[in-house]
Amino acid sequence: METLKPLADMYAAACPTRQILDRIGDKWTALVIGLLEDEPKRFSELQRSIGGISQKMLTQTLRNLERDGLVNRKVYPEVPPRVEYTLTPLGETLCTPLTAIRAWAETHIDEVVDAQTRYDGRD
Amino acid sequence: METLKPLADMYAAACPTRQILDRIGDKWTALVIGLLEDEPKRFSELQRSIGGISQKMLTQTLRNLERDGLVNRKVYPEVPPRVEYTLTPLGETLCTPLTAIRAWAETHIDEVVDAQTRYDGRD
Repeated sequence: METLKPLADMYAAACPTRQILDRIGDKWTALVIGLLEDEPKRFSELQRSIGGISQKMLTQTLRNLERDGLVNRKVYPEVPPRVEYTLTPLGETLCTPLTAIRAWAETHIDEVVDAQTRYDGRD
Repeated sequence: METLKPLADMYAAACPTRQILDRIGDKWTALVIGLLEDEPKRFSELQRSIGGISQKMLTQTLRNLERDGLVNRKVYPEVPPRVEYTLTPLGETLCTPLTAIRAWAETHIDEVVDAQTRYDGRD
């Protein structure tokens, strides 16, 4: 049976969990994984779908996700070579929590913007 | 009935949802909200509980959370003044998705570190 390590670990400065928490919480990560949830995508499809992401930032995001074992990069030996990105089984386990986070942001954005307006106008 | 806006919004560069997605995904945010889930805390308690966070970073994190309407800062008129931070009702709605994200990181950290080791050693 899998045992869940105590959450307290994450509150220690040296815990690697904290680094991965930052990665999975990154907005580019959440957006890329959301796009890969249904089907594999090519680099150009990802870039077109995510408004405002630079080629450099998408390259770096995909490289980090590949290094973390969340995304698989598959090269098809065609001319020109075709490269597709898919979620690994580990990456798929991240879909449910990330969907909940994206849904929270979508649902509550108006309340957050109202709060920001009140805060900025209180002086 | 509350209607969920289409997730596609978040893929537009100008959507404010994206900014808030970055904030709630920030590791300091996740750690602070986790600590406030059970009971109000003072600044010094938060700082002691989060290894490696600087005073400046904690101040900035709390100010952003207050501005976003997620955390309430209450000053008790004592000498010296006592300041306590609590979650607002909006902040409480964030506990469930953030707990899922923290639990994912805790559960899968070993697999991520293994993947990183394989990736770094493949050259």
